[in-house]
Amino acid sequence: MSGKKIDVLGIGNAIVDVIARHDDAFLDRHGLVKGSMQLVDEAGALSLYDKIGPGIEISGGSAANTIAGITSLGGSAGYIGKVATDQIGDVFAHDIRAAGVAYDTPALDGGPKTARCIVIVSPDGQRTMSTFLGASALLGPDDISEADISGAAITYLEGYLWDRPDAKDAFRKAAQLATKNQAQVALTLSDSFCVDRHRDSFLALIRDGVDVLFANEAELLSLYETTSFADAMAAVAKDCTLAAVTRSEKGSAIVADGTVTEVPAQAVDEVVDTTGAGDLYAAGFLFGLARNKPVAECARLGHVAAAEIISHIGARPQVELKTLI
Amino acid sequence: MSGKKIDVLGIGNAIVDVIARHDDAFLDRHGLVKGSMQLVDEAGALSLYDKIGPGIEISGGSAANTIAGITSLGGSAGYIGKVATDQIGDVFAHDIRAAGVAYDTPALDGGPKTARCIVIVSPDGQRTMSTFLGASALLGPDDISEADISGAAITYLEGYLWDRPDAKDAFRKAAQLATKNQAQVALTLSDSFCVDRHRDSFLALIRDGVDVLFANEAELLSLYETTSFADAMAAVAKDCTLAAVTRSEKGSAIVADGTVTEVPAQAVDEVVDTTGAGDLYAAGFLFGLARNKPVAECARLGHVAAAEIISHIGARPQVELKTLI
Repeated sequence: MSGKKIDVLGIGNAIVDVIARHDDAFLDRHGLVKGSMQLVDEAGALSLYDKIGPGIEISGGSAANTIAGITSLGGSAGYIGKVATDQIGDVFAHDIRAAGVAYDTPALDGGPKTARCIVIVSPDGQRTMSTFLGASALLGPDDISEADISGAAITYLEGYLWDRPDAKDAFRKAAQLATKNQAQVALTLSDSFCVDRHRDSFLALIRDGVDVLFANEAELLSLYETTSFADAMAAVAKDCTLAAVTRSEKGSAIVADGTVTEVPAQAVDEVVDTTGAGDLYAAGFLFGLARNKPVAECARLGHVAAAEIISHIGARPQVELKTLI
Repeated sequence: MSGKKIDVLGIGNAIVDVIARHDDAFLDRHGLVKGSMQLVDEAGALSLYDKIGPGIEISGGSAANTIAGITSLGGSAGYIGKVATDQIGDVFAHDIRAAGVAYDTPALDGGPKTARCIVIVSPDGQRTMSTFLGASALLGPDDISEADISGAAITYLEGYLWDRPDAKDAFRKAAQLATKNQAQVALTLSDSFCVDRHRDSFLALIRDGVDVLFANEAELLSLYETTSFADAMAAVAKDCTLAAVTRSEKGSAIVADGTVTEVPAQAVDEVVDTTGAGDLYAAGFLFGLARNKPVAECARLGHVAAAEIISHIGARPQVELKTLI
């Protein structure tokens, strides 16, 4: 659509997930709020790691999952995010490059370790995350180049970046460069607690520099401090041109130029792990958008990608998504 | 049955698996023999890692999988195996301790890295393994203490140890200490190519120092250089008191004091990944044996544990196996 070299450039926290399954009693016992993401320091991460039992390590990171989804759908994509020069960082870099993503952010040497996210998967497939940001939080403006941003039709940013000053500066620089280079800026709100931490600056950003907004229902309600979905949709319709709001098994609602379109979710046999559902919805949606599809078709692509990801453990596709569309 | 402190002490290569799915054409293209385990050096492992695409990291190692299965069944177990002081080694140590296994082999500092096994899972669930032994091959006699061996009813050894001189010495010492302390010695042949590499010394060991032998059909045929399963069973009946031979979906055949008992496999809905099927069969069997169960019941426990492991990716149980028996 754009003459740009690649469809989407994602920028986010470069994280490896450690996944374990536990019941709700485990969450209660360790003071974890089901379905949330909390930030922990290295000591907190190690302490929780001691308690979770055996785990599975798999590359994660919200925007990185989205980007891996876009290449799996047949799109072209790049990623910017910071790992450390350690084995877990090597795993992250291997996996994202193996997914066909252009990735060359320099690894951090001598500082904190590569970010880890401990994901507790509940019997109903919901996930509760405790994230040690480590090296990922030291992504800074110097890691963002105009050449990278100008070469992508869409620059996709995760709200989590807003949690740390260096990453926030990198985020701002990327958004400004995208706008300057006639590229679209897409943002995902990431988490209702993340919205709660940054409501005013997110609202300012959405009204001013964001072309496409992704949120789930809880995040949208938190953004507008309301319990009414209709009120929140009316508010977001005023604040941005295009917003896609996911509602779990109810599908998604898309606001485009003031008009709301509802698209049903894709049926799945069994929900194994919802980790990455929102990330992969964004992958399908952005892939469609970069190819000028109507918004209902963008949403359908999002639901197809999300359905694949929630049918197994981990937030990266296990089949080539392009075979499913 | 024995007044021993723990049921089973396992000794083996401490390995973290990197799992990826590919079709048979991928195996052909990279000269891999479907269903086999080949040893590779670090350069070979890195080269293959470059080609496999995104992976999942999960603790493995044949005897370690068995030991984790035994504690999951409600048994008590210890493990001896060598990792390096690196992040992948930390993952291995965490996972085996989190499984409730006593594990305190000192990690290797300043030498090769923690062992990695690249597991290619085929669409039919079969796995093809390329193992970089790294630190695990430097397990030596000094890592084996008489106190550990004498405290376990059964010492369980994997044939893979026989591939490296230091580990072979450790293996020999453990077997001798077990016999001296009225503990049983169990051996798994590990792999038909491993049998091929060490046929004569394995036969000498089986005739002399092994109380319980585990093998699959291919390994048994390789051991006796025959294509006749009946001939191989007759030969093994002469060579050892108790042998359990697994035959995939045909179940297992147990030779006990010259009598053969056949036990059917446990049905599974879908075979996702056979990695660890033999390891978990051994877990169930040894758990039964340590509790003086009849051999048919030991085999049934083995099939229950194997059925759980082949229904998902990875060779460590994802549910408490004791809830299945």
